[in-house]
Amino acid sequence: MRVAVDCMAGDHAPAELVAGALAAQDDGVEPILVGVPEQLLPFLPEGGGGWSLEPSGQAVAEGEAPAQAFRRRPDASVFQAVRLVREGRADAAVSVGNTGAAVVAAAHVLGMLAAGRPWAGGPVIGFAPRTVVLDMGANVDVRPAQFLELAAMGTAYARAMLDVAAPRVALLSIGREQGKGNRQVKEAYDLLAGSAFRFVGNVEPYGLLAGDAEVVLCDGFVGNAVLKTSEALSEAILALALAELSGRAPEADLARFIRRVREHVQVAERMGGGPLLGVRGVVVVGHGASRVEAVRKAISTARDAVRGRLVERMEEELRRLSRTEDRKAESRSSRAGGNARS
Amino acid sequence: MRVAVDCMAGDHAPAELVAGALAAQDDGVEPILVGVPEQLLPFLPEGGGGWSLEPSGQAVAEGEAPAQAFRRRPDASVFQAVRLVREGRADAAVSVGNTGAAVVAAAHVLGMLAAGRPWAGGPVIGFAPRTVVLDMGANVDVRPAQFLELAAMGTAYARAMLDVAAPRVALLSIGREQGKGNRQVKEAYDLLAGSAFRFVGNVEPYGLLAGDAEVVLCDGFVGNAVLKTSEALSEAILALALAELSGRAPEADLARFIRRVREHVQVAERMGGGPLLGVRGVVVVGHGASRVEAVRKAISTARDAVRGRLVERMEEELRRLSRTEDRKAESRSSRAGGNARS
Repeated sequence: MRVAVDCMAGDHAPAELVAGALAAQDDGVEPILVGVPEQLLPFLPEGGGGWSLEPSGQAVAEGEAPAQAFRRRPDASVFQAVRLVREGRADAAVSVGNTGAAVVAAAHVLGMLAAGRPWAGGPVIGFAPRTVVLDMGANVDVRPAQFLELAAMGTAYARAMLDVAAPRVALLSIGREQGKGNRQVKEAYDLLAGSAFRFVGNVEPYGLLAGDAEVVLCDGFVGNAVLKTSEALSEAILALALAELSGRAPEADLARFIRRVREHVQVAERMGGGPLLGVRGVVVVGHGASRVEAVRKAISTARDAVRGRLVERMEEELRRLSRTEDRKAESRSSRAGGNARS
Repeated sequence: MRVAVDCMAGDHAPAELVAGALAAQDDGVEPILVGVPEQLLPFLPEGGGGWSLEPSGQAVAEGEAPAQAFRRRPDASVFQAVRLVREGRADAAVSVGNTGAAVVAAAHVLGMLAAGRPWAGGPVIGFAPRTVVLDMGANVDVRPAQFLELAAMGTAYARAMLDVAAPRVALLSIGREQGKGNRQVKEAYDLLAGSAFRFVGNVEPYGLLAGDAEVVLCDGFVGNAVLKTSEALSEAILALALAELSGRAPEADLARFIRRVREHVQVAERMGGGPLLGVRGVVVVGHGASRVEAVRKAISTARDAVRGRLVERMEEELRRLSRTEDRKAESRSSRAGGNARS
C-alpha cells in the first residue's frame, strides 16, 4: 500500500509530516514523501527501504487561491501527490495543507464521480462515531436531486469504512415527521422514499447524536452550521465547567472529562482527517495543525479507504443509482407515450 | 396593564395557569383569566379585585390542527384571549398551549406587519442573552429579501426588550468573510449591506455565542437546527459530566454546573416564553410544561413587550424599511427611464 504524503504543507511541515509518514510504515504503509528534496533531506533517515521520495515544488500556502496555484504552479506538493494517484504510482494521497488546493487537485487531476465539488463528510460527530454526516461544508447549495447522490456516497462510506452492511439513511431536519423541514428537505424526502436506499426518514439533532442512522444527509451550509455550533457550544460549556468545578473536582478527573467531551464532539482527532468524497481516487485531507500522530492517523485513514474499496463502492452505488433513475425516467416516458397514443 | 391569560392550555391547566396569572399581579399586571368558568372557579380566590374572568371554550389540544380548530371552535381559549387584544380589552395575550393555534390566532385575529407566518425569535441562546436570534423555526423557507424584514423586527426587538440603542445586525453563516455562505446568505448580505441597518456582516456560531451582534439572522430551518443541536449536544455533554464526575466532585457543585449549563443554553426558562414577531399585537407563547413560575415569567415578558412598545417599534422599523426600499425602487426606475430616453 503506497500512500503519497504531501510533506510540504501544514503548520508543522516538513518535520512532523516526514516523521508521521515514516511512522506510518508500522501501519503497513509504504509512504511516498512528496516535497522539495533539499528541504526534506535533513529529516530523512540514512538509506532508503520502505519509503521513497518524490520531488515537488513548494506547498500551496494557506491564503493562496487554489485554482490560481493549480494553473501557475502545477508542481506544488499537493498537486504532485494527487498526480501520483492518477498515474497509479500511489494508492492514495494525504495532505494537511490548504483544503481548497486538495479539492482542486481531486477534482481536476482525478475527476469526479458525482456532481458538485468534492464532498466533505464522515463520522464527524464523536457522539455518533458510526454515523456518516454529509455534506459538512464543501457544497452549500445542494439541489434536492443531489441528495440521492449524497445517499449513494454515504452508503458506500458506511459500507467501506464502518463495515455496515445495510446503512440506514436519514435526512437531517427540524422534525421527525414527513413534511417537517424546508422545501429542499421535503423534496429530497420524496426522492429518497422512492429510492432503493434504506431510507428511514428524518432525524433531528437529538437523533443524529444518538446514532439513529448510519448516514445523515444535509446540505453543506446546514452541516457546517451544526458542526460549528457543536464546537462552539462544547467549548463554551467546558469553560463553564472550569469556572464551576475547578478546585472542586480533582484536576485529573476534570481534565479527563474535558478530553472526553472533545473526543465526543469531533472524531477528526481520531481519524486524523477524512477522504474527499465523490472523487475518482483516495485523497485524505487533515487539519493544518496536525503533528506526527495526527499525520500518521490521516495516513491510516487513507489506507483504510483503499482497503475498504471506498472509491470502487462509491462508483458502484452511483452507477446503480443512475441506472435506477434512468429506468424510472424511461418508465415515465413510456407511460407518457402510452397516454399519448390512447 | 391588562394581560389575557389562556388558562385552559398547557400541561398543567388550569391550576398552574390560574396561579401564575394571579401571581403576576405582584408584577404590576391585571390578569384577565380566559377559560371555561366552571373549570376555573375552583382555583379562583373569593371576591374579585385586580383580576377578571373572561369566558371561553376549551383549549386547542396539542395534537389538534390549529386552522381547523379556528374555523370550528372560534371560542377556544387561545382565540378568545387574542381577540381581547384586538378589541383593546387586553394589552397582551399569553398562552402556553398549542403553538400553532397561537400562531393562527395572531395571524388571523390580529394580522401581520411582515410577510410570512408570525416569526419566532428572541435571545434564545443563554450564552448570548442580549442577542436576538431570528427566525428560530416558524418560517423555514425565507427569501433573501425577507432578511430585511427580519433585520427590522430584530432591531425593534433589541431596542424594545433589551434597551440596545443601535443594535448590530449580522447574518449567521459558515464563514465571517463576505461571500461565505450559501446563495441565500450571499444575496441577503448584499441587501443588508445596502440598507440603513447597522449591519456588521456574517457571524459564525462562535460569534453568535460570544454575542458579537445583538441581532443574528437566519432562516427558520437553520435557526431551529442550531437551537436543537445546542439542546441535544448540551444534554449529551451533561450525561458525560455525570458519568465522569459523579462521586468525584461534590454533588451540589455538579448540580449547580448542570443547572448553569441549561441556563446558558436556553433563556426560555428565564423569560417563560417569547412574543410572536411581526404581529399587530403582543402574543407571548410559553412552553407547554410551564408551571406557576414559568407562567408568571411569560406574563412578565408580555408586560415588558407592551411597556417597551415592541409592536409599535416593529411597525415603525418595517414602515421605515418599506419607505427606503420604495425610494430605491423609484430611483432605479427613474434611472432606467432616463436611460430609455437617452
